[in-house]
Amino acid sequence: MKKLINKPEDFARETVEGIIAAHSDQLKILDGSWHRMVRADAKKKGKVAIATGGGSGHLPVFLGYVGYGLCDGVTIGNVFASPSAEDMYEVDKAIHSGAGILHLYGRYGGDIMNFGMAKDLCEMDDIEVREVLVTDDVASAPKGSEDKRRGVAGLVFAYKVAGAAAEKMLSLDEVSRIAQKTVDNTRTMGVALTPCIVPEAGKATFSIHDDEMEIGMGIHGEPGIERTKLQTIDATVETMLSRILEDLPFVSGDTVAILINGLGATPKEELYIAYRKAAEILKGKGISIHRNYVGEFATSLEMAGMSISLLRLDDELKELLDAPCHSPFFAQTK
Amino acid sequence: MKKLINKPEDFARETVEGIIAAHSDQLKILDGSWHRMVRADAKKKGKVAIATGGGSGHLPVFLGYVGYGLCDGVTIGNVFASPSAEDMYEVDKAIHSGAGILHLYGRYGGDIMNFGMAKDLCEMDDIEVREVLVTDDVASAPKGSEDKRRGVAGLVFAYKVAGAAAEKMLSLDEVSRIAQKTVDNTRTMGVALTPCIVPEAGKATFSIHDDEMEIGMGIHGEPGIERTKLQTIDATVETMLSRILEDLPFVSGDTVAILINGLGATPKEELYIAYRKAAEILKGKGISIHRNYVGEFATSLEMAGMSISLLRLDDELKELLDAPCHSPFFAQTK
Repeated sequence: MKKLINKPEDFARETVEGIIAAHSDQLKILDGSWHRMVRADAKKKGKVAIATGGGSGHLPVFLGYVGYGLCDGVTIGNVFASPSAEDMYEVDKAIHSGAGILHLYGRYGGDIMNFGMAKDLCEMDDIEVREVLVTDDVASAPKGSEDKRRGVAGLVFAYKVAGAAAEKMLSLDEVSRIAQKTVDNTRTMGVALTPCIVPEAGKATFSIHDDEMEIGMGIHGEPGIERTKLQTIDATVETMLSRILEDLPFVSGDTVAILINGLGATPKEELYIAYRKAAEILKGKGISIHRNYVGEFATSLEMAGMSISLLRLDDELKELLDAPCHSPFFAQTK
Repeated sequence: MKKLINKPEDFARETVEGIIAAHSDQLKILDGSWHRMVRADAKKKGKVAIATGGGSGHLPVFLGYVGYGLCDGVTIGNVFASPSAEDMYEVDKAIHSGAGILHLYGRYGGDIMNFGMAKDLCEMDDIEVREVLVTDDVASAPKGSEDKRRGVAGLVFAYKVAGAAAEKMLSLDEVSRIAQKTVDNTRTMGVALTPCIVPEAGKATFSIHDDEMEIGMGIHGEPGIERTKLQTIDATVETMLSRILEDLPFVSGDTVAILINGLGATPKEELYIAYRKAAEILKGKGISIHRNYVGEFATSLEMAGMSISLLRLDDELKELLDAPCHSPFFAQTK
């Protein structure tokens, strides 16, 4: 295991401590627990609060999307492990500002269970909670079973759009509707070249030959849909995009936002070469790109690979996507 | 060679094409050549123009620092290869705005030769050119020979500060003085865990055992100062920082900016664990952190490892470092 770390069991906590040391002007820990973080600025009375969370190892997901125009609080677990319902409940209470809470997170078993329990606890306190699960990973369940899919980098679109809706002081009904609409219009497909190593496990999450890649692999190493010989990046982008485009389907005349996401060890150069091809393909299909994001937005430690996400936009989503936001990891001024 | 690319010989050009496709609102290609890029916004008459450049494979260095409050133009070569003097000269002419040009780049043989030739060509056109070479890599030459050192991630501080000075409409004398002062007060030390592979070479830039790391390795795989067994990140940060601190030297009462830079394949989690330790050490030494940067700022394709840079600040540098700037890769609003 070649990692620059201290004790494996301290990895997630020390990461949070480093982030808080660097960004205490924007993020703060709650109750002295590194599992619980909230925005450092004052709550806005009557604003819908958005909570997210999940396991560590995916920076900037999840805590990187806590800030103005994004989420209000986050609960962080150990690497690839769900945080506890109690931690979620405490974050919920801290961020609630009188207008209810949206639980917005990726669809994984442990998180569903724990966020569900936190919701029940909140409701006993008369705090209204809705939940929207992000389910953008096309590879994780077939068409027709969209609600069984996992959430991956499309989380970022959901945070951005729902966060802007909440910042506009829309109601819990409206913020939830808009978050679900964002999810319904988002599709992602990934490709992995190498596995990552969970520090406490000390071994690779899966094995793959030096001349192979896996299309559709999940961000915890969940099996994809096709293992092939390593292809050119242009061919890989074509395969990924064709799966995405036919799934929604995205058609000529659509306007989209696109996110090319590095999984941790992929050079930015390769992400831009992928963007080059993706933009060419979309142009050829008559699909307009309204806004692009290229970089690391949802990672899997040191996994090599990338994902492509598309969000189909209408006027409402476009306006919210374009609204300003800022966190230590994600800022947009226009 | 496990890379998501097309033909190795197209790698650098396709990267630039992807960047221009994504960011044409901020960057534009000159004369149809991917080697030459300038800011997309209008030139400000009488502003000192700042040109930089160097080989590809280091994103966001170099072209990621072309924008408001940063550089005005950049010349890009193939991977790890200097661009040509002719390309530099054409960029110089395009960005010149009547107040002279600062060549601001890292100290590498090919770049020195080519920027020198471009300077001569400009001077034949009565365009005044100064040059400031960034020489922040402590590991690359001993104390007393600071001017023989290589430039690494400290480039970012030089761009940020000199760019802000130019945006304030200071004279070429002043912008050059401030750029040199920034370099004189910057020190960097790196550590590498794995090599990278230059696409056209197809093999690793160096070899290293699975249980080893190399302190002081350069961003093209230049030999470092010590190869050791893999240490904890806390011990590694201590070693790196102690070399940096004793070199300037940085002393109690100093105020610094710190940059923790990932070399390409290092998870953000590890960078923040490094920041955690670095902040603790500096606090213990009575050195204040005025501003921190944690992320990928100067990479080496998919190399695993990181560097730490410190910039000692006085009031002048502090004000310039804090000024706003924006490029597709680097933005600061406050």
